[in-house]
Amino acid sequence: MSDSAIAAVLASLAEANISYSTDAAVVEAHSVDHTNTVKPGRAAALVRAKSTAQVQTVMRLASQHRVPVVPQGARTGLAGGATATDGALLLDLTAMNQVLSVDAPNRLAVVQPGVLNAEISQATKEHNLRYTPDPGSWEISTIGGNISTGAGGMCCVKYGVTSEYIQALEVVLANGDLMRCGRNTAKGVAGYDLVRLFVGSEGTLGVITEATVRLSPIPAQRLTLAAVFNSTAEAGAAVTSLMGAGLQPSLLELVDAVHMRAIEDMRPSGLPMDAAALLLAASDAANPEAELSAIAAHCEASGATEVHQATDAMEADALMQARRDALHAMEKKGAVLVDDIAVPRTALAQALDAVEEMSRKHGVTIGVIAHAGDGNLHPNIIVDMADPKSVAAGNAAFGEILDVALALGGTVTGEHGVGVLKRDWLRRELDPVNLRMQWAIKQAFDPQGILNPGKVLPSLE
Amino acid sequence: MSDSAIAAVLASLAEANISYSTDAAVVEAHSVDHTNTVKPGRAAALVRAKSTAQVQTVMRLASQHRVPVVPQGARTGLAGGATATDGALLLDLTAMNQVLSVDAPNRLAVVQPGVLNAEISQATKEHNLRYTPDPGSWEISTIGGNISTGAGGMCCVKYGVTSEYIQALEVVLANGDLMRCGRNTAKGVAGYDLVRLFVGSEGTLGVITEATVRLSPIPAQRLTLAAVFNSTAEAGAAVTSLMGAGLQPSLLELVDAVHMRAIEDMRPSGLPMDAAALLLAASDAANPEAELSAIAAHCEASGATEVHQATDAMEADALMQARRDALHAMEKKGAVLVDDIAVPRTALAQALDAVEEMSRKHGVTIGVIAHAGDGNLHPNIIVDMADPKSVAAGNAAFGEILDVALALGGTVTGEHGVGVLKRDWLRRELDPVNLRMQWAIKQAFDPQGILNPGKVLPSLE
Repeated sequence: MSDSAIAAVLASLAEANISYSTDAAVVEAHSVDHTNTVKPGRAAALVRAKSTAQVQTVMRLASQHRVPVVPQGARTGLAGGATATDGALLLDLTAMNQVLSVDAPNRLAVVQPGVLNAEISQATKEHNLRYTPDPGSWEISTIGGNISTGAGGMCCVKYGVTSEYIQALEVVLANGDLMRCGRNTAKGVAGYDLVRLFVGSEGTLGVITEATVRLSPIPAQRLTLAAVFNSTAEAGAAVTSLMGAGLQPSLLELVDAVHMRAIEDMRPSGLPMDAAALLLAASDAANPEAELSAIAAHCEASGATEVHQATDAMEADALMQARRDALHAMEKKGAVLVDDIAVPRTALAQALDAVEEMSRKHGVTIGVIAHAGDGNLHPNIIVDMADPKSVAAGNAAFGEILDVALALGGTVTGEHGVGVLKRDWLRRELDPVNLRMQWAIKQAFDPQGILNPGKVLPSLE
Repeated sequence: MSDSAIAAVLASLAEANISYSTDAAVVEAHSVDHTNTVKPGRAAALVRAKSTAQVQTVMRLASQHRVPVVPQGARTGLAGGATATDGALLLDLTAMNQVLSVDAPNRLAVVQPGVLNAEISQATKEHNLRYTPDPGSWEISTIGGNISTGAGGMCCVKYGVTSEYIQALEVVLANGDLMRCGRNTAKGVAGYDLVRLFVGSEGTLGVITEATVRLSPIPAQRLTLAAVFNSTAEAGAAVTSLMGAGLQPSLLELVDAVHMRAIEDMRPSGLPMDAAALLLAASDAANPEAELSAIAAHCEASGATEVHQATDAMEADALMQARRDALHAMEKKGAVLVDDIAVPRTALAQALDAVEEMSRKHGVTIGVIAHAGDGNLHPNIIVDMADPKSVAAGNAAFGEILDVALALGGTVTGEHGVGVLKRDWLRRELDPVNLRMQWAIKQAFDPQGILNPGKVLPSLE
């Protein structure tokens, strides 16, 4: 796109009273997300949309002048899906931040894309309802971003992923047309499922301007257990064993020795420093004690050296704090390259071993926290951003961990998305026919290629 | 397509040792599904595929000669999605009927499209796992058809729909190319969600040749309750009330007076003949007694004249038998036009009233069974197929019921699909932009329009 195209768009935006900034510092500050290793392009302007109508105007102008648009929420993404591309308009949707309605009997809420995940449950709490999906970023990430990345979280092991909680969407298409898809009913099969096509599409197919999300009853109580293991293999075996037995923990998280050390260093909390892995499980079943006892039995049978069950909510919270602190504690050690792979649950121990091997091979510190019940691992690689060798070693390990995921029959992203970070690996995960159809869909929705160009899909070769 | 095109395809099929028949009686017998009012076209041949490779050959030939193909499973559909179109090859997939593998620890099964729904749970029972979605046809319908229609069932109120249980698919595209989509991991967001695009696409985007389905633990126990109401409004209010309170019955079904009468006429079982509606609820929670007691309290508060709780599994089964007999009992009264709408749960009573009004207005008998907890109603219209006036009245009522669904903010199909039966209403349910994008997707997957032409999508105007 040319400077004159940008100038024409900006002039029309001004005329339409749509707020924007071309201030270099403002644009630069909005050009990155939480990904450490992605170098953003130089965007032309930051546009702040206040309404669906304004988003339509922006897309009509962008389409008319063939100017790329990068839709953005809170930019907490970890794959570079919302980073700037050259000459693009950054379309900030955080001002569209209203919970428009809550329909308790039908368990639905209608929200704008800039509403924070946590704000939805806040607005529905009085009805004993919550928006279930709980990515780690839930207090700072927007629902628009959650939908666009298909964000996961700790609850998924029992309650499933974002995709299952989105009923309907209002979307502004590349040419500015407004489309509604989905429905207000619990069930429905009228036409192709466009809602789930948009979940995880990272702003490449349209701009989400409104979402109808499904609410769920807040579970009555919740108890927590911690199991200590001397080897990751044993922790992995415990996960396979208890999930295979049909138990349904509401959370099943693994924290490895590297993370435990980092957490202790940040705030001593009595974690077992000689252990290889800590497994945290929670139950919100009607009889959580029975379920946790069964989980404890599987842990012990798999070799846990210690199993501790929280006896009240406060103690359970304390147990969870370590898990919540994990990434923050690692960030005290250096810049963290957050990887995100998922493998079949039974391959969890193999994946953990492979990550340890990568750490040795590349001479970088790598810790793993995992949504263990889902086989979803976050190998967190610590690098020194001022040392090119350290960054290179970290990046090499990062990539080889993705190779491991594919070799174990897994995926290169469990819940963070592809963005710009993993395009090349997407090519290796999908077969060529699938990739061709992905592009055919992109082409159908965005024939000019102006929506978040360069994200998700690798070029066809 | 021309006769010579068909002849060329059939010659090549013979050469490839792919079984087919052009016998008029055979072809005609395979030209319809379970929909009463759809007049099928004249298909050219019935092709019986035995492998993915054979399906690829069929699609390559069909594409080369521009011959339409109608993929078929057990043809138990209720919207004419698998009925013959003129000059088409009917592609019968029921011979691809193997459960290829069961992976208990990862809770996955890999199955061919012709496997019956019930056969999956049969194959996984020894691991205490089941394939959860349970359409009424589960003992006679194939998993390929279930996926293609997005089939529902009684379990959906607690366990969700087919869409949530399909992990990966192998699909033969229109040109014969083989595509895999989805993954073996519990989570994953690598690329657009093509799996859910195929769920409910009714054979219009590709031919499903293999599916990886998600298994779930078989619930430990299950108790049932029956509540009797003097008005459908009170029954509807009970549903709204108990669901709004956050209760999670594993089944919540409504049987109306018309169905109760039909069931009694078929096999007297002591149903309350003076009641307007019977609500059946089940619970498979860890403490089903507590949950059913809470449900009973909501029913009583909403005006139930009687609430009966089954005290053991045998009595619970007996209570459910009436519900299972409902459609069969109606079929003793005449041909049944099975409608399928879903409305917001709170509009259940209004929808029931509107259906009763349709019955009076058109002078036809209409009974309703409903997956009440989901707001999914099946108004079953009895007509005399030998009497054109009766059929016309039934069809008029059928259509006006769909109008009611849309007016109440609902959908024209909750779980049976669009097929040829509801194309014109799909146009009214979807906004024009949505419909245009539906066609753009169809075009991307099937540029020649040879895959189940005339199904699902109404023409663009």
